[in-house]
Amino acid sequence: MSDNFKQDALDYHANPKPGKLSIEISTPAETSRDLALAYSPGVAEPVRAIAANPDDAYKYTIKGNLVAVVSNGSAILGLGNLGSLASKPVMEGKALLFKRFAAIDSVDIEINSADIDEIVRTVELIADTFGGINLEDIKAPECFEIERRLIESCDIPIMHDDQHGTAIVTVAGMLNALEIQGKDIATAKMVCLGAGAAAISCARLLVAAGMNKDNVIMIDRTGVIYTGREGVNQYKAEFANDVTETRTLAEAIVGADVFLGLSGANQLSVENLRAMAAKPVVFACSNPDPEISPELARAERSDLIMATGRSDYPNQVNNVLGFPFIFRGALDVRASKINEAMKLAAAYALRDLAKEPVLQEVVDAYGGAAFVYGQEYIIPKPLDPRLLISVAGAVARAAVDSGVARLPLPEHYKL
Amino acid sequence: MSDNFKQDALDYHANPKPGKLSIEISTPAETSRDLALAYSPGVAEPVRAIAANPDDAYKYTIKGNLVAVVSNGSAILGLGNLGSLASKPVMEGKALLFKRFAAIDSVDIEINSADIDEIVRTVELIADTFGGINLEDIKAPECFEIERRLIESCDIPIMHDDQHGTAIVTVAGMLNALEIQGKDIATAKMVCLGAGAAAISCARLLVAAGMNKDNVIMIDRTGVIYTGREGVNQYKAEFANDVTETRTLAEAIVGADVFLGLSGANQLSVENLRAMAAKPVVFACSNPDPEISPELARAERSDLIMATGRSDYPNQVNNVLGFPFIFRGALDVRASKINEAMKLAAAYALRDLAKEPVLQEVVDAYGGAAFVYGQEYIIPKPLDPRLLISVAGAVARAAVDSGVARLPLPEHYKL
Repeated sequence: MSDNFKQDALDYHANPKPGKLSIEISTPAETSRDLALAYSPGVAEPVRAIAANPDDAYKYTIKGNLVAVVSNGSAILGLGNLGSLASKPVMEGKALLFKRFAAIDSVDIEINSADIDEIVRTVELIADTFGGINLEDIKAPECFEIERRLIESCDIPIMHDDQHGTAIVTVAGMLNALEIQGKDIATAKMVCLGAGAAAISCARLLVAAGMNKDNVIMIDRTGVIYTGREGVNQYKAEFANDVTETRTLAEAIVGADVFLGLSGANQLSVENLRAMAAKPVVFACSNPDPEISPELARAERSDLIMATGRSDYPNQVNNVLGFPFIFRGALDVRASKINEAMKLAAAYALRDLAKEPVLQEVVDAYGGAAFVYGQEYIIPKPLDPRLLISVAGAVARAAVDSGVARLPLPEHYKL
Repeated sequence: MSDNFKQDALDYHANPKPGKLSIEISTPAETSRDLALAYSPGVAEPVRAIAANPDDAYKYTIKGNLVAVVSNGSAILGLGNLGSLASKPVMEGKALLFKRFAAIDSVDIEINSADIDEIVRTVELIADTFGGINLEDIKAPECFEIERRLIESCDIPIMHDDQHGTAIVTVAGMLNALEIQGKDIATAKMVCLGAGAAAISCARLLVAAGMNKDNVIMIDRTGVIYTGREGVNQYKAEFANDVTETRTLAEAIVGADVFLGLSGANQLSVENLRAMAAKPVVFACSNPDPEISPELARAERSDLIMATGRSDYPNQVNNVLGFPFIFRGALDVRASKINEAMKLAAAYALRDLAKEPVLQEVVDAYGGAAFVYGQEYIIPKPLDPRLLISVAGAVARAAVDSGVARLPLPEHYKL
């Protein structure tokens, strides 16, 4: 980022008033009568109704359209563990994106704790307030247990976006990249560099989408995760490889079809890239600096399809393509959870939308660039207005079909 | 409430969408550049700033203008313990009033627990999110310990409104009622019927405003609270009386100047009222049905000044006269707490405003009724636009003067 952009970002957050959100009144609240309806004595009626029938909370309060963005600030963006207070601008930003892209009312809740039990209990106790909960920027491996326990104990959709949002968008792009390169996901060989929350979740969803687990080699800071390696947590162990003798990235990358990087800047060398199979797929998602620079990669391998986490290169793996619409779909059918079928449905909807001709308004919004399905356009752009119906609709339908919805599919999704 | 009004109240909560609030975006969020400033990569800058200097959270996030309305639903209005979910319409209503009267962004948080430790810990853990916390509808005696511990452990203003908001408005009206009746607060004798959170807090603030504790007789369901009575909790014991042999309301009310009712419908009989001193002051604040009906009371004692909790009689003791402005003043000088000096300053500001000539717009807002300081107008009306500067200004000034403010008094309060 340039110094100018940094200052612009600070100014953006300070003006016209501190922060990016405001809480507004959605009902008439001017006259004495308005206030008598909104508060005492009128408010006693919805209270009585909800006490008699808890589902009436969806009828008389904002609950059904309200998503909390919850973090403890232990893994903020690429910045690390800076604590709950410092994470607040990110969580407000996420709330902003929920509103901007999916008309979801969203507030941030920062939890000042590193303790799994405490975080789980806090979210459980305040969950009544919300229709869904987006966990965010909570470090691994704690995030796995926190999410699992909350999904078990709460009856509203709960999703750790760093895991599943990333996985959904990655899988969407990966499926298209493989298709364009003429590769079959069932036989494609992948090296996954990084073994954190996002990496494990991506690998899981790729397997769910058809990748052979035996074709995945996952590498953490110590090297390849292989069966029997010591000091490997249960989540990494899920991808321990027992079909290869390779122990390093340099060994693993030879002949690989896919490189998925969720690690750090410049971890993939030109030599590594050179050793990959013909027509390789490289997702270098480390932010702000990818595992290999797109210029360098392109110069070395013109047969490559590459994606990054950056908006200034083609094929940005951007979570905003996922979470607003996933929660929109889940809320619209009052799903009790976000299950694997819903995640895959979201990924497939994103995959399919990228193949549709791009709208002129999207072209205009991105300065006139022509987006045509192919090497430099494998994932929809965030400002594509069709995302809402496509992705939310697919998620809602999958929720209904998989039996976790408490409402029927809304008419506007029946296309 | 009429059936029509009840249905109107339900309709009001269900339309135009469920609930009474919406969360809106307060910054530009249309273009790719907007979003790059609001979220990744721009948001990293305020994160870094806050990590380096926690006070920057007030500069770059909504924290400084955000108040949580927190309840566990254990004492909802006059409805009792209906649980956290059923309390949500009330808490959203409170958030609406914060915005309507004091431009404070406010969200409700319902905590599904009856356990003091759990409630305290939950609020402590999420307190970073907010600039202030309004505790609401939490039953006594738990509310006392919860508030005390949170004030000790958190560095933001925290106030249980059922206690202190009620007390502030009550004291304001009481001071004027006593003045109009020609009574001195230092010698006035009061019977307080009810010994819950509001009653104890009212009695405490009246003593702080000059009432002699020995002149207060507090009565709970068992009768007069006297020194040595068994089974009296520490909060009630504070008002245990050791200067009287009276044990019943009928005995205690003889010759009393003031009756303060925070108990239940029709608890004060005409005989009780007849036994009071000349020019009595009766605050019958039970809702919706007061301790004695105003018509009955007026017919028996034309020399009376009476206040109730109802908007359809004169002299409504309405918390909305307090909490929005108390928090506005506290937030505006970034007070670390709401102390006794600030509460008294709020009460005195309300007292003084009632003596000012009423604005024509207030007369119009209440259907043309003429409000003149006297028997039927001892407290300002909620729609009086001068409340904001008067009460918030007084609170802010008291915070500065008492050393709990972290910012100087804003110019617009220096009148």
